[in-house]
Amino acid sequence: MILLANDYSEGACEAVLRHLVETNAETLPGYGEDLYCDRARDKIRWACQTPEAEVFFISGGTQVNAIVLKALLGPCEGVIAPDTGHISVHEAGTVEAGGHKVLTLPNCEGKISAADVKRYVEDFYEDRNHSQMVYPAAVYISYPTEYGTLYSLKELEALSDVCREKGLFLYLDGARLGYGLAAKQADVTLSDIARFCDVFYIGGTKTGALCGEAVVFSKGNAPKHFTTFIRQQGGLLAKGRLLGVQFDALFTGDTYVAVCRQAIETADALKRAFTEKGYALLIDSPTNQIFVILDNDKYERLKKDVVCRYWRKLDENRTVVRFVTSWATSMESIDRIRALL
Amino acid sequence: MILLANDYSEGACEAVLRHLVETNAETLPGYGEDLYCDRARDKIRWACQTPEAEVFFISGGTQVNAIVLKALLGPCEGVIAPDTGHISVHEAGTVEAGGHKVLTLPNCEGKISAADVKRYVEDFYEDRNHSQMVYPAAVYISYPTEYGTLYSLKELEALSDVCREKGLFLYLDGARLGYGLAAKQADVTLSDIARFCDVFYIGGTKTGALCGEAVVFSKGNAPKHFTTFIRQQGGLLAKGRLLGVQFDALFTGDTYVAVCRQAIETADALKRAFTEKGYALLIDSPTNQIFVILDNDKYERLKKDVVCRYWRKLDENRTVVRFVTSWATSMESIDRIRALL
Amino acid sequence: MILLANDYSEGACEAVLRHLVETNAETLPGYGEDLYCDRARDKIRWACQTPEAEVFFISGGTQVNAIVLKALLGPCEGVIAPDTGHISVHEAGTVEAGGHKVLTLPNCEGKISAADVKRYVEDFYEDRNHSQMVYPAAVYISYPTEYGTLYSLKELEALSDVCREKGLFLYLDGARLGYGLAAKQADVTLSDIARFCDVFYIGGTKTGALCGEAVVFSKGNAPKHFTTFIRQQGGLLAKGRLLGVQFDALFTGDTYVAVCRQAIETADALKRAFTEKGYALLIDSPTNQIFVILDNDKYERLKKDVVCRYWRKLDENRTVVRFVTSWATSMESIDRIRALL
Amino acid sequence: MILLANDYSEGACEAVLRHLVETNAETLPGYGEDLYCDRARDKIRWACQTPEAEVFFISGGTQVNAIVLKALLGPCEGVIAPDTGHISVHEAGTVEAGGHKVLTLPNCEGKISAADVKRYVEDFYEDRNHSQMVYPAAVYISYPTEYGTLYSLKELEALSDVCREKGLFLYLDGARLGYGLAAKQADVTLSDIARFCDVFYIGGTKTGALCGEAVVFSKGNAPKHFTTFIRQQGGLLAKGRLLGVQFDALFTGDTYVAVCRQAIETADALKRAFTEKGYALLIDSPTNQIFVILDNDKYERLKKDVVCRYWRKLDENRTVVRFVTSWATSMESIDRIRALL
Repeated sequence: MILLANDYSEGACEAVLRHLVETNAETLPGYGEDLYCDRARDKIRWACQTPEAEVFFISGGTQVNAIVLKALLGPCEGVIAPDTGHISVHEAGTVEAGGHKVLTLPNCEGKISAADVKRYVEDFYEDRNHSQMVYPAAVYISYPTEYGTLYSLKELEALSDVCREKGLFLYLDGARLGYGLAAKQADVTLSDIARFCDVFYIGGTKTGALCGEAVVFSKGNAPKHFTTFIRQQGGLLAKGRLLGVQFDALFTGDTYVAVCRQAIETADALKRAFTEKGYALLIDSPTNQIFVILDNDKYERLKKDVVCRYWRKLDENRTVVRFVTSWATSMESIDRIRALL
Repeated sequence: MILLANDYSEGACEAVLRHLVETNAETLPGYGEDLYCDRARDKIRWACQTPEAEVFFISGGTQVNAIVLKALLGPCEGVIAPDTGHISVHEAGTVEAGGHKVLTLPNCEGKISAADVKRYVEDFYEDRNHSQMVYPAAVYISYPTEYGTLYSLKELEALSDVCREKGLFLYLDGARLGYGLAAKQADVTLSDIARFCDVFYIGGTKTGALCGEAVVFSKGNAPKHFTTFIRQQGGLLAKGRLLGVQFDALFTGDTYVAVCRQAIETADALKRAFTEKGYALLIDSPTNQIFVILDNDKYERLKKDVVCRYWRKLDENRTVVRFVTSWATSMESIDRIRALL
Repeated sequence: MILLANDYSEGACEAVLRHLVETNAETLPGYGEDLYCDRARDKIRWACQTPEAEVFFISGGTQVNAIVLKALLGPCEGVIAPDTGHISVHEAGTVEAGGHKVLTLPNCEGKISAADVKRYVEDFYEDRNHSQMVYPAAVYISYPTEYGTLYSLKELEALSDVCREKGLFLYLDGARLGYGLAAKQADVTLSDIARFCDVFYIGGTKTGALCGEAVVFSKGNAPKHFTTFIRQQGGLLAKGRLLGVQFDALFTGDTYVAVCRQAIETADALKRAFTEKGYALLIDSPTNQIFVILDNDKYERLKKDVVCRYWRKLDENRTVVRFVTSWATSMESIDRIRALL
Repeated sequence: MILLANDYSEGACEAVLRHLVETNAETLPGYGEDLYCDRARDKIRWACQTPEAEVFFISGGTQVNAIVLKALLGPCEGVIAPDTGHISVHEAGTVEAGGHKVLTLPNCEGKISAADVKRYVEDFYEDRNHSQMVYPAAVYISYPTEYGTLYSLKELEALSDVCREKGLFLYLDGARLGYGLAAKQADVTLSDIARFCDVFYIGGTKTGALCGEAVVFSKGNAPKHFTTFIRQQGGLLAKGRLLGVQFDALFTGDTYVAVCRQAIETADALKRAFTEKGYALLIDSPTNQIFVILDNDKYERLKKDVVCRYWRKLDENRTVVRFVTSWATSMESIDRIRALL
């Protein structure tokens, strides 16, 4: 079988695993106060070009979203998000469990625009009953989005501008950030993200680590007692080194992006394979998620050899199927799929 | 320096690390649905002699406490715990953040008794204002306790009996369970714990793993949608394999207890070293935490060579100091300390 | 000025006020344990024809929604509601503050249908990712709706059937229930509501009382410790008599419906006044809320004499305006408006 | 029967009831935006001598405690309170339900001292593990306390000083504030309370109103969106006038204190009756709660004619019994009790 169902099917990339093994016997302080966490924080600050940033390590993405949004939002405040956003649909109501409403906007290929946000906020304040409603206080976007698409630098800047104008936090979910940074069409750098967002996270789990995400408060604007809050919310590992060591490896040189480049190259090859054979793509995604329109019987045949993911029915005869590459996908797998088309 | 400050200072024990490395390249399903998670669950059920048990893997202990207690307690219900319990003091209010009160009872060397619990519950229902108060609905104990002490089989059975009589859940925090099982004086087995408790967790982080705890609902009594709840609360790792592989290694043969035995043997040697030199112990703990009474100047001198933990002032001249051994502590370290006494 | 902006602009109706004054000096137990609360509960059970019902008094509607839904919904469970539902929009996120998601369905004149609910639930369970999503566990409807419309007996029965089939609670918000019961087109009785819903509330605040709503668990199915939960959530008045006395008055004879009939008659007269003069109604609501389409300049002129509520812009030249009558609206006010049209 | 069980057994005092009746027919805006709310706010500001204060009306005391503390406390923050405090025991865990821990200090006749608070906070920050614990961020006291005792001006000032020094909010629960202000031994005025506390509430329910408490943020320091938060938490009455009219009546002239004086005079007479007959008081409370030590058989005989409240057993033969007077207690009732002693 060729596995292209998701990007969290293998363990750690080589650099990460090696560093874990090498440092395993060292005796280190707990709870993120070890030297590898410190080094990783420094390297991330450097990569973001934000010496004043505060960096925290948390095991998984849903946990980051839960903790960051609960910490940032005040009573009666909610977060604007695309209706396809991970927090809107696939986190089992984690934001609501934290006491806050997700205020959804219709997405366009997974994205929302500065104009949409602006209109929402202005309509809200013009509504004479708005004091009976949930105040928009933050904007959640993901980069890449759930559809593998990317905000352009101009789009990101516009979102940032409208957030500042309206007094909202801009929060970017970077579960797959590395694939965005490695994409050929991307015109956004890590430093741009740090500059335009109030807080964001650099995904590890899906981009070469065993687990772990790095939360970055770009402007040194972490909430009061934030480490204690992470602990209270169950997000602080006793062996914080597990996350520090991994991010130390990923942010040594350009490992983080280099690791992800493999996914982009295999995804590009896969897209070419499909389009050359006459298949249509639902969306022309520049990252590691590909949405292909398949005839139902082709899909059934392909499923015998490839693990991919049913996305949705397009019509009676056609199905949208998602293929995901990762840092662990080999070009050979792509060649084997091409042979099956 | 000799490090005896805690039992989470090193990475993984050899068996765990090797298994992680060996399985690293395998392509596996996410979210705990891989074969290593399944194997580990089976082995844990077998070790507990509870074929009907439901087992879940969660990254850390505070997270387990938060999730289990939030899932078990209804509105207006609280959990009885010793005043020294981890949830009572050192989890930054995680139970309260989940909406529930911790109802503390005075501890005796870290433990509470069945009689104490019985009296509390009976007094509660006799109070004519009890409908204005928080209903006791669960009992939290830890094994070993925060003082390294152990409940005897008889004590545990009595607690279990009173919980059943009064309709309370009995929940056991086993962050250091392996050290309890490996202790020479222990007369409680894993199967006893599974039989007497409604839910408990088997610690991994402090007993040989990099991270991870195994939550066991002994009687197949996990709450509805519990995996979804773990996800919502941020406790479900995408690469669930990270936990499954580790527990698979720990529960192969008697690895779990064997790994912990090293801590018990070094702790026993350390106790002997202290007592032979005339030092008094605050508590005669049978596990890997030792509480020694030191003259202040002795403590100051010792601190130059040993990383241990200030516990509290006993009087003007004497200090209680905690020493913790782990699976990674060598007998050679103990010899070096003996030489310093 | 003629005031038709809402139905909570006056104090109490005569029967309620008189009863409050008459009983004011009596010395009674607190917290809802007085004889007037008991009498009111008995009268409500009788009116609902549900001797087994449990009845609780709570000061306001948002509070009832918050308390009932928080008590009924388990972790990871949400409530289906029309997108125009009061809990969906105008309660400042009270359901989310209680930890749960409102799962909105598109409304049709304020209502949702059994078929919509059925499809939503079936689609949910067919979604292979549903364990990552919020489980639908209850349905919220209001009677009358935010648009003054009413479910027919057949519609209500169908909703009830689908809820039982799918294992959802059916919860009816009856903030304006009296106006629904008094409406000429209504074919639903209080007893039907009690029969078809698991829990509902009988509004007092908007239908003749100073404050207070009566929550009815029709089948004796109130959650455990519910009175304690009301207290914990801040909804239990020390002088519970304030609510008991008022509902005792409202449910003496047919006071409750009789009081509301005045609103229906004045609303009907107002509708005739508008339609006879050639104005169009947005919705032909059978209760005390009327949605009229006015030319913008007509609206501007009318505002000088009538306090009504801007609803929304229909197009460049026309505005939808809401007029609300109440038990306190006089037919004379309607005559005065007619003269202005 | 003579009823001295509590101070919320009757309806409203005459001035309040009359004002409710007189204003009943007036058509007024909802949600606390009516002129009576405005007037009451102005009168309260004047009485407190704090023109900048923000005043909000909420129906009951537990609700005020829940809302104010949830609004003031950040994540990981708790409130220091006496172990006998209403929030510590008799509100069914309302503070914990809001996500925060009550940090109890041992009481002395219902009070805590500035020195106790200072020591607690200093010990907290000296504890090297304090980042794993709940941060003290507010102090809760009640005036009068649960034992009817009063803080002196000096004690209140000292508490205020230590709170400012340590960065804590000082919050005063004034459920029975009127009885404190009317007490002969009191040297604290409403203006002192406003000056020394960051936020407090003026009780209505137990001091002459049917329901309602006035929350005062003395320094114009109400949290953002506070009215919306009250709504979300279910505390905003549609007919806000119900509270405004009552406080308007209570704060016209010296009605509030005058109404409460009757309770003080009858309580004083009752104390004299007991002490003259040789009975001992547990505490010499200066307000409307009296704690008398009775022989068991005397208590049994007295219960036939007087409704009072069992407080606790003093020893085998003696019981502590609480008698509470109110604005509605007549001197004749006291005479009748005296005849029974």
